[in-house]
Amino acid sequence: MYDVAILGGGPAAMTAALYAARKKLKSLLIAKEIGGQMVLTSEIENYIGFQHITGIELSERFEKHMSQFKEVDKQIDETAIGIETKEKCFEIATDKGKKYQAKTVIIATGKRWRPLGVPGESELAGRGIAYCATCDAPLYGGQEVAVIGGGNSAIQAVIDLLPIASKISVVNVATEWQADPILLEKIKIPEKVVPYLGWEVLRVLGEKQVLGMVIRNRETGEEKEIPLEGIFIEIGLIPNSECAKGFVNLNKHGEVIVDCFSRTNVPGIFGAGDVTTVSAKQIIVAAGEGAKAALSAYDYLIMKGFWTERACST
Amino acid sequence: MYDVAILGGGPAAMTAALYAARKKLKSLLIAKEIGGQMVLTSEIENYIGFQHITGIELSERFEKHMSQFKEVDKQIDETAIGIETKEKCFEIATDKGKKYQAKTVIIATGKRWRPLGVPGESELAGRGIAYCATCDAPLYGGQEVAVIGGGNSAIQAVIDLLPIASKISVVNVATEWQADPILLEKIKIPEKVVPYLGWEVLRVLGEKQVLGMVIRNRETGEEKEIPLEGIFIEIGLIPNSECAKGFVNLNKHGEVIVDCFSRTNVPGIFGAGDVTTVSAKQIIVAAGEGAKAALSAYDYLIMKGFWTERACST
Repeated sequence: MYDVAILGGGPAAMTAALYAARKKLKSLLIAKEIGGQMVLTSEIENYIGFQHITGIELSERFEKHMSQFKEVDKQIDETAIGIETKEKCFEIATDKGKKYQAKTVIIATGKRWRPLGVPGESELAGRGIAYCATCDAPLYGGQEVAVIGGGNSAIQAVIDLLPIASKISVVNVATEWQADPILLEKIKIPEKVVPYLGWEVLRVLGEKQVLGMVIRNRETGEEKEIPLEGIFIEIGLIPNSECAKGFVNLNKHGEVIVDCFSRTNVPGIFGAGDVTTVSAKQIIVAAGEGAKAALSAYDYLIMKGFWTERACST
Repeated sequence: MYDVAILGGGPAAMTAALYAARKKLKSLLIAKEIGGQMVLTSEIENYIGFQHITGIELSERFEKHMSQFKEVDKQIDETAIGIETKEKCFEIATDKGKKYQAKTVIIATGKRWRPLGVPGESELAGRGIAYCATCDAPLYGGQEVAVIGGGNSAIQAVIDLLPIASKISVVNVATEWQADPILLEKIKIPEKVVPYLGWEVLRVLGEKQVLGMVIRNRETGEEKEIPLEGIFIEIGLIPNSECAKGFVNLNKHGEVIVDCFSRTNVPGIFGAGDVTTVSAKQIIVAAGEGAKAALSAYDYLIMKGFWTERACST
């Protein structure tokens, strides 16, 4: 029986675990892997305190910091698939067929990439279709590629590809970029980066591997075939909220609805980080939200007299 | 004319400035000093990524990170004393008699120490009465001292004093500690630390310097005179919200009321960190809230068409 079960392994989850441990809560952290989206980010320049750090390095520093506390029991390579009420507590079921009981739960399961949903995409995933420039950019040395999307992750993917690919087409369905100006400045290289603003991808070409794509201008209807070897799809993220579906309230995007105290609609269940309705999806924000969720869980345990009692099921 | 004026110099303000700069906003930061409460904290162990760091070091890292951006105009040793609406923008008045105009404002002015309010306290401030153990503990080598309070900052003060003072009386008005168990464990040293739970300070003794104090048991009424040389008052903090009073809504504690998007009740005015109603007063939380506030200010500017317009007053 744990005081708090923390679902997820990214910055929100690890900070929640750190704060829970400092409050001497018996904590369980269940995560497919440690680091969340951080480990798939090449350079991080906006976690204040570190001007430049790789995602992997920052994740390792977070993990080391959290792991100094013996109070945190870590179950890695395991994913929570469901939560239910059990007596006065909660029971979490995982994909390993295990069940864990906890007096409070913090859902901090983050997000994952959103697929484009066009013909050829799923068939050629891993054979020219990629979702992680950090991971896969080095495979496209001297080749022509495309990046789909117009937000920070898309433009960061272009930046990652600049020293590697020979030409980069950037296709964004909107007629403006959503990325930070500071990032956009870095890709103003007309001989290498070809923007397609207001265009959409119709289909991916190729059978055994990506050979090109067909795009369409959303205003004029003009279609264009672009031969290329790689397509990086960077069109946003889907919340990993399946384990909470039907148990706590989600918004229309599938995000766990939390209030300013990290509370969901179910007393004792909290949420933190990118999986929630928090207004900004940033590492520093996720970390702050993780701290808030752990402190709210602690307050809840104190209020319920759970913390001293140390047991709440039969 | 600035896109955003950030009031304050602590973790919330500096992170807001960093995020504003990354969004290419023309930013002004007005602060009495850089670092806020961080620079008065000896050891920080809960800013994830740094297992152990001094408050001064962390503040320096934050400042260096923020200062890499030329977009941030810093006015240090200056305090905002009022905000008013001017045309479509805001005008901030400072204690230097200057006025600055900005399209948005982020109030991130933090908190300051709360005085005890007993006879002798103000008269002997700096002559035995202290509010900052980090700053003043070294002055009390081999002497008997007291710490007033029972929260994290009080217990941290006791920890700071352990290797220095000969005896430490800890007086807390409540009958339980509010501090983290992990901190409380460190002060379980009966031969050195004498707890007075449920006691209050009646008055400070001494004329030219502190010679002792009189405390009273709140249940039994018993009074006790304790001779000592130093009294560290660690009973909480007061929000530095004077500049916003009458302009944005404050709660009964004087905190700036913000929603989950860092918005106050006045469109274009945002709040972040300890000066606000945020649920946890922690460096990592303040930093996250600063990022949220800057991103909300950016969204507001985009929505209003202010950012491209670059001017909004006559």
